[in-house]
Amino acid sequence: MHPRTGLPVVGMVGAGQLARMTHQAAISLGQSLRVLAAAEDDAAALVAPDVLVGDWTRYPDLARFAAGCDVVTFDHEHVPADHLRALAAAGHALHPGPDALRYAQDKRAMRERLSELGLPVPSWAPVTVAEDVGEFAGRAGWPVVVKAVRGGYDGRGVWMLHGSGGLAALFAAGVPMLVEELVPIRRELAAVVARSPYRQGAAWPVVQTVQRDGICVEVLAPAPGLDEEVGEQAQRLALTIAQELDVVGVLAVELFETEHGLLVNELAMRPHNSGHWTIEGSRTSQFEQHLRAVLDYPLGVTTMTAPTVAMANVLAADGLGGPGLDERVHHCAARWPEVKFHLYGKRPLPGRKIGHVTVLGDDPQAVRATARAAAGYLAGGVEEVSV
Amino acid sequence: MHPRTGLPVVGMVGAGQLARMTHQAAISLGQSLRVLAAAEDDAAALVAPDVLVGDWTRYPDLARFAAGCDVVTFDHEHVPADHLRALAAAGHALHPGPDALRYAQDKRAMRERLSELGLPVPSWAPVTVAEDVGEFAGRAGWPVVVKAVRGGYDGRGVWMLHGSGGLAALFAAGVPMLVEELVPIRRELAAVVARSPYRQGAAWPVVQTVQRDGICVEVLAPAPGLDEEVGEQAQRLALTIAQELDVVGVLAVELFETEHGLLVNELAMRPHNSGHWTIEGSRTSQFEQHLRAVLDYPLGVTTMTAPTVAMANVLAADGLGGPGLDERVHHCAARWPEVKFHLYGKRPLPGRKIGHVTVLGDDPQAVRATARAAAGYLAGGVEEVSV
Repeated sequence: MHPRTGLPVVGMVGAGQLARMTHQAAISLGQSLRVLAAAEDDAAALVAPDVLVGDWTRYPDLARFAAGCDVVTFDHEHVPADHLRALAAAGHALHPGPDALRYAQDKRAMRERLSELGLPVPSWAPVTVAEDVGEFAGRAGWPVVVKAVRGGYDGRGVWMLHGSGGLAALFAAGVPMLVEELVPIRRELAAVVARSPYRQGAAWPVVQTVQRDGICVEVLAPAPGLDEEVGEQAQRLALTIAQELDVVGVLAVELFETEHGLLVNELAMRPHNSGHWTIEGSRTSQFEQHLRAVLDYPLGVTTMTAPTVAMANVLAADGLGGPGLDERVHHCAARWPEVKFHLYGKRPLPGRKIGHVTVLGDDPQAVRATARAAAGYLAGGVEEVSV
Repeated sequence: MHPRTGLPVVGMVGAGQLARMTHQAAISLGQSLRVLAAAEDDAAALVAPDVLVGDWTRYPDLARFAAGCDVVTFDHEHVPADHLRALAAAGHALHPGPDALRYAQDKRAMRERLSELGLPVPSWAPVTVAEDVGEFAGRAGWPVVVKAVRGGYDGRGVWMLHGSGGLAALFAAGVPMLVEELVPIRRELAAVVARSPYRQGAAWPVVQTVQRDGICVEVLAPAPGLDEEVGEQAQRLALTIAQELDVVGVLAVELFETEHGLLVNELAMRPHNSGHWTIEGSRTSQFEQHLRAVLDYPLGVTTMTAPTVAMANVLAADGLGGPGLDERVHHCAARWPEVKFHLYGKRPLPGRKIGHVTVLGDDPQAVRATARAAAGYLAGGVEEVSV
């Protein structure tokens, strides 16, 4: 319990933009998020006072961090499983717990478990040597997708292969891999839900996610033109996964929409890029809901605050020269007074997510065009004329 | 400029709930609010990392604080005018500036200036001795309202007098006073606007404020049943005051609605209790707008996010025993999943504002009843059955 407020202290391992926005939501609940940061100038460490700078791969740092928390939750899924189990064994409340997080850390375990539950996934196979890929492709046909079992994100750890060339190099590192069919998809969707220890569940409307080079660039809420029944099916799917895998907190289920129905692509057990639109677009944001869930508070309503919402990520441009960030924000605010900014305080390395923008409105195409144009301008100071 | 983000640093003198919620809004803009706190456990100091603990009545503390800011703004209007002028003379950017703040600090100067501008105020007179009050009452009739020229808030520094008894005691302290007619009012309204150095102005819909014992307990947005023309007149009045007094940032104009029109009661040149509803109820909150204004960014749109919004303050009950705050939040979240909480981390001294709640909806009476019930429960753990 916090000595001043008498409220339980929530700690988040990792101090990126997800922790930054979770701290922002925590303030309303009378909280101040404790964060385990890799560096003093991590996105969340710039805005929160209760920061431990440490290394989440080292158990002593994790233990020191957890000692100051009533509940520990996560900004990313990379904490070693052994450390998670040791923390739980030492009596710390982890939400989500090690048994759930395993399925967010290990794509093979996730696909095996979802297959056991009879939930739809792309056809896949574990692979240990390069020849296994050729064998799978012999049945499923080229191209195929090879994925590292652990550690991939934002398109890293994923390779699309049109033939067996280059396979040897890929397997030289000796990391566990799996292979999947390249699914012919209509588009990608995401179903974001939350679940509390009390087993309460809440779902936001299903969204469309737009990727470029494996990185999410836009999210449209609700997914334009989505069949109502498919939307409900996606929400049920996500709530079922949350229940069966005993997830506590936010669960994002990335989905493929295909001619033959939905397939589960990836899981994330934390606030997720596909839920950033909820800060302004829903009565309860994913960050507040994650806190409510890990605190075992009753969940908030997920009603949308506008008929349609678009979110666009700000990916730092290669830009040399051009206006600085302050000038770019100034220009954007003048050009689009309806745009809501979210800047993360991160170094603008080219391609890095340094912020996002959200636009609410009535017309899905109009809000998307505005969000895309504003994000593009914020990224590098150049406004695309055709959007 | 902040060394990491390249954005200007905004500092706020005072670290109460207004600074706390301004820091929360600052996070979206890539900012982290610097605060001058009286104590380490002030509401804003619990959630912001850039805190200087010091005394805003001492110039050296103010100067040390301002040295780390690109822009200095205020959580309250109590910084001595001489210190403000000295800071400005030393080259610090103060928003609002000393010339504007004078009218928020000194009720006599404010009434004189508004009268000069031909703006409607209650009939009033400066008083220096007790006899002046009797003389004014001889013309205007009893009861009259006596106010301290400086330093009052939340009903402090205001006395309603039905006759000349007790006047001597009131004047014994020797503080400057003024006397006003007791205006027969229909209700109290507030017009909250913002103005930037670039002279851009933006107004939110005019709200009704409900007071109990001189303290604002509820705010209804928009003011139910308000004549459209009167609403526009109130917004124009507030924008005119902002322009004429050269206010930068948020200006709240507290108004009396009378049979004969509007009268200006008080001014506040900072985010104000009557604007808390904008956090969820408007596309741009008063806290974000205040930051945009003091940074001279273009202002955000003030469109409402729902047809009607009610805000109720949580005033700590005298409560001995009963459930703790954590249990009360838990119960409220279960009972009213649509209620948005704002807890300030403050010691629950009886009668103190320790938080507020906001409810959005279609029916003004329903949202008001829910907000009042939730705030009442949060205050002391007892739900009023009749609301």
